[in-house]
Parts: sequence; structure tokens; C-alpha cells
Amino acid sequence: MKFEILHKSKKSHARVGRIHTPHGIIDTPNFVAVGTNGTLKALNNELADELGLQLMFCNTYHLLLQPGTDIVKQAGGLHKFIKRKQPLITDSGGFQVFSLAYGSVHDELKSRGKKKGDGCVLKINEEGVTFRSYRDGQKIVLTPESSVQAQKDLGADIIIPLDELPPYHIQDDDLKKSLARTHRWEMRSLETHLANPQNQGMYAVIHGGISQELRKLSCETLTKLPFDGFAIGGSVGKNKKELRELIAYTRPFLPEEKPNHLLGIGDLPSIQELVPLGIDTFDSSYPTRAARHGMLLTKTGGVKINQSKYATCFEPIETGCTCPTCQTHTLAYLHHLFKAREVTCLTLATIHNLHFMVEIMAQYREDIIADRI
Amino acid sequence: MKFEILHKSKKSHARVGRIHTPHGIIDTPNFVAVGTNGTLKALNNELADELGLQLMFCNTYHLLLQPGTDIVKQAGGLHKFIKRKQPLITDSGGFQVFSLAYGSVHDELKSRGKKKGDGCVLKINEEGVTFRSYRDGQKIVLTPESSVQAQKDLGADIIIPLDELPPYHIQDDDLKKSLARTHRWEMRSLETHLANPQNQGMYAVIHGGISQELRKLSCETLTKLPFDGFAIGGSVGKNKKELRELIAYTRPFLPEEKPNHLLGIGDLPSIQELVPLGIDTFDSSYPTRAARHGMLLTKTGGVKINQSKYATCFEPIETGCTCPTCQTHTLAYLHHLFKAREVTCLTLATIHNLHFMVEIMAQYREDIIADRI
Repeated sequence: MKFEILHKSKKSHARVGRIHTPHGIIDTPNFVAVGTNGTLKALNNELADELGLQLMFCNTYHLLLQPGTDIVKQAGGLHKFIKRKQPLITDSGGFQVFSLAYGSVHDELKSRGKKKGDGCVLKINEEGVTFRSYRDGQKIVLTPESSVQAQKDLGADIIIPLDELPPYHIQDDDLKKSLARTHRWEMRSLETHLANPQNQGMYAVIHGGISQELRKLSCETLTKLPFDGFAIGGSVGKNKKELRELIAYTRPFLPEEKPNHLLGIGDLPSIQELVPLGIDTFDSSYPTRAARHGMLLTKTGGVKINQSKYATCFEPIETGCTCPTCQTHTLAYLHHLFKAREVTCLTLATIHNLHFMVEIMAQYREDIIADRI
Repeated sequence: MKFEILHKSKKSHARVGRIHTPHGIIDTPNFVAVGTNGTLKALNNELADELGLQLMFCNTYHLLLQPGTDIVKQAGGLHKFIKRKQPLITDSGGFQVFSLAYGSVHDELKSRGKKKGDGCVLKINEEGVTFRSYRDGQKIVLTPESSVQAQKDLGADIIIPLDELPPYHIQDDDLKKSLARTHRWEMRSLETHLANPQNQGMYAVIHGGISQELRKLSCETLTKLPFDGFAIGGSVGKNKKELRELIAYTRPFLPEEKPNHLLGIGDLPSIQELVPLGIDTFDSSYPTRAARHGMLLTKTGGVKINQSKYATCFEPIETGCTCPTCQTHTLAYLHHLFKAREVTCLTLATIHNLHFMVEIMAQYREDIIADRI
């Protein structure tokens, strides 16, 4: 893995770069589409390639339970199993397991830390975390070593060390303890990875919740180690303001010469705020989920395709859009398909939204090169 | 509309022909895919074109209620609205309305005629049938004239006159009365159609339930009229044996020089039995529905993709299959996607099954030309 910086904006911390991986180049800044189970929702992987999605995010937790990383390994790795030609990134599985323990970030925020998971997590200790498979009740131990081994079997271009995901509502002392453990887990992960690099790159995950002190500590600790890039994870704030402040504070502690990634955030307003702060890649299921709910992204604020005003609108979603959906279909037809609850519309809408993300990220890169942002 | 017979088998009543329509040729015998709402389930219309599906069946009842035939007309007709280049056929809407009145054929057979519909049908008389829209409660009157007008607005290449769909369990006298009314309705439909042919062809629907006498009467009555083809409709028997006997009896009363169609039946065993009896086209949602339930069609009896034995089968669905799914993906990946309930698998399976139908019908035509069947 190699990271090349092509241009640094004169106007902000934004930069344009290129991550070279065994499966091709990722231009940065860029959006990373989420294909949890080895496919984007409602879109086959060939089309994702054609749309120019340079990096796809798959979830180790899901693939561990179904089909099992042993089967993916037998298939010759994740690229071959799912027939994706371009780069892949996998996470450690930790995020989903700790969501089981604490509830999702959303649930946890809503319940102010009171709502806990459904009892699937059996044990969390220094060794790792033990949970029950929702598929067959099997007990699974996720440790830094087993997570990295699973990610070796999957064979994505970029992998992520196991971390502990503390809830947003946590006492300072507990957060400190959690951070220390996360650092130990990340070191064990890195060691396991470096024993058999397999041409993969590993991004550390910076933690520390919303504490500036701990974020700084996390950066200082992890950037000393030979990670290939740095992801910002954990609780990154309960709203856009907290998020912005956190990234503005944290990002400068990351080495310029290595790529960084923001985990799980990729909505349009956040990208707009955070590209100037120097974030390189964003993963999010937002554009694909929005598509399935009939929210089509446009430069003028989006189209809620269910609205009756589109019933007789025989224009494409956005004039000038070059996506396969807009090249062929009208708002009226898409509106009809959504009303008739046809699966086809999920695919057509997903195509449009992902194409939109590809185009808007290319526009960001162009604007940075021209020092416009 | 023109029908050309290219070859009659020396071994059976099977024949190979070509129906010429304003949107291209339909080779016969052929399978007609069902795209109820103006799309095949889980497949966009461009791909349906590419797969070589020469005729697609859309349902006037559904399109009447959503988006409304006025909107389709505004779009420039159904081909333009749904962006389909090849031929389309629409039905009269009667089948669905009478299913509301009597329950579906399946329900009706199972309940031996006792189960009635849900009260949406308000009135059936000589004029037509009045029902309530399930979408907005609006009262809709479907008459021979309004059905044909709706089909003029849709503008399919082949249209169908309004008929009455009596239940399977019916007294002889009632069946006779129903048949007479159907004939009157079909004549009114034809008259409306011929006043403004719009380059469309109209197929009569032969009725008479399982009575040979009435089927013969229906053929004799309707074949005297200038219909462009003849569809066999109504109750065609409660099992494959009754169906076979009925077709064997009825088909010879249809004029050789015009195309015929069997309404709503297109499973593989039926096609195999009925092609040699001289049936030209079959419409059915079987291959697309089977695909969505994980039943993949193959020459060796089919693949139930959910079966665990496919989890590690890194081969295509069928060796040698040239469909886009088999060219790219393995059984193991498809099995995984089905297990993970990913929408993508519905599309991939549908592609395979429809390609299979296209190929098998081409094989039938080849076999007929070689007098093998």
C-alpha cells in the first residue's frame, strides 16, 4: 500500500491523494460504499465497479457468521467470492459486537446509555469478546488475533484492528481504561498482521470518545506504530457540531503522509464540512439506504420520489446526470415503481445515488486542486 | 400485425412461426414474461431487452390503478413510459377484477367455489363490472369499451378484449350464460378496437371452462371474427391432465394461420406438453417468482439455492450457461446472498431463470424445425 499526495489546498487542510492498493487506486477524498454482506444492497458488484466506486466496505462480523470466513477463503478470498475487481476494506467485527452489547449508537444516544443490548454478548475481557451467533447460537470469541485472522481469510486490501467501542455515555475513568485496552488490542492486531502482511494495509482506529485529551493520547500512541493509515472511530459526537470540533482537533495529530478515514459517516453535509479539515475517505450506508427509502440525491437538495408531484414529471432525476438510471428513466416511472413497491426501483435509485456520490467526490477533488476549497 | 409460419413439425402439431409487430418480431413458440406493473420483478427493462425476452405481459388492471392509464398516455404510451423497445401485450383487466369477485383460481379451487372475494366488486351486469380501487377506494367501471380504451392509452402491440371469468365450480347453465356474455363483450371490445386500430393487434379469448361443447362453441363463435390471434383463457382444468385434454381438444378449432396464446400458464412441464399440441406463446410469472424463492431453473431439474450443499459450490448454476449471472457468479455466492436476504440475489436469480426460458424456447424452435418434436 502506498499513499501519494497530489495536491494540498492553499485554502484549507483539504488534500487530493491516491491510495495504491493491490486491486487498484483509490482517489482521495472519496466516498466508500458499504456492502455489508459482500454486496451493496440491491446492486450487483459488477455495476458497482462500472459506477466507479473505488472502495467498498464489507463487515467482518456479518461475513464471519454468514457464509463464514473459511468459505470465503476457500473461494480464494473476498474479491473472488463476490467478484469485485476494485479495492475492498473490512472492519474488525468489533463495532457490531459492541453494538450488541450497548445497543446501537443511535439507541444508546436516545436512551442516554440506559438501553443495553439483547444479551448476545457473553463476556468482554482482556482476551477479547465472546458473543453468540444470531444465526445458530454458536459461541464466537473475537480477539485481536482472531479478527485479524478472519480479515486475512477475507483478504481485503485494507484491514482494521480490533477495538473496544465504549458507549457515548461513559465515565471518564472507564473511557480511559477502555482506550488503554483498545490500544493494547490494536498493538496485538498489528503484530498479528505484520507476521503475515499478505499485501494488506492496516489502518489503526483512533479512539478517545469526545475527550480531546484522550483523542490526542490515542493519536500519539498509535501514530508511533507502523500502521498504513488512521481511521477515526468510536463516539465522534452526538451532533454535527461536536463531530466537527472533534475532527478539527484530532486530524492535525495524524501524520500528513498517511491516509486517514472517518468510520461510518458519509452524509453530504458532513462530507462538505470535513473534506476541508483534511479527511480522506468516508464510509456510509447513507446513499444506498436513502435510495431504498426513495430519497434521491441531487445537487439541489434531493428528490423524495414518493411525492405525488413526480407522478407526471417525465424528466430524469437530475438534468445532465449521466447515471444509467437518468440516462433511461423518468421521475414519473420511478415514482410509479416506488408506489407499486417494485424491487426494480430500489436498484434504479441505488444506481443514481451511488453515481451521485462518485461524481460529487470527483468534484471535491477538482475543487481542491483548484484551491477553491 | 402479421403471423408467418416457418415450419410445421412432421411429428406433432408444433410449429415455428414469427409474429411481426410494430416493436419487432416474436419468434414462436415462445415464453412471455410477466411485468405486471410495467417492470419485471427485480429486473430493469433494459436488461430484459438484452436477455432477448421478445414479449412482455403487463396488466391493465394494475396500471389502471397505478399510475393510471392517463399518465402512461401522457408519457407517450407504455413502451416509452417503461422504456421497453420490444413488443408488449396487455390484458383487459377482467382477470384481476373477477379474481377479486371469486377469489383467485387457486383459492377458488381449494375452497371448491365457496370462497368469495373481499367485496371490492360492487356490480357485474351486461354493461360491465364495477369495482372499488384498492388504492383509493375510487369506484371504477370496467366495460369492454373502457378496457379497450385503457389498452389504447397503454398502446401495447397486442391487446385483449374484456371477458367474464367464471369460477371453476359453476353450474352448466351459468357457464353457458357467462360464455354468451363473454362473447358479447368480446364483440363490443373488437368493435371499439377496430374503430381505432392504432397498429395494435387484438387476440380473442376462448372460454367455455372445462366443457368441450362450450370450448368448441367459443372457438366457432370467435374465429369468425377478425381477431388477430386467439388466447385460451378461463378455467383450463384443475390439473395437468385436464389442461392437456382441454388444449388437445380445443386447439384444432383455432385457425392455423393465426397465432394462439395460452393465458397464465408457462411452467416447464406444461410447455413441454403443450408445444407439441401447437401452442405458440405462454405467459407466466413462474420463472420470475421461482427465482425470488431461490428456485433456479436448470436442464437437470433445478437448483434450490437455499440448500446447504451449495454453500461451498464454487461453480456457476449450470455449466455452460451463458447468462450474466452464471458468467460471473458461483452457487456459493448466490447461496450466501439468499441466506443473507440480500435483494441483489433476487435480481441475479431472475436474470438466470429468464435467460433459461429464452434459451429453452429457442431449443424448442430448433427441435421443431428438425422435426424432433
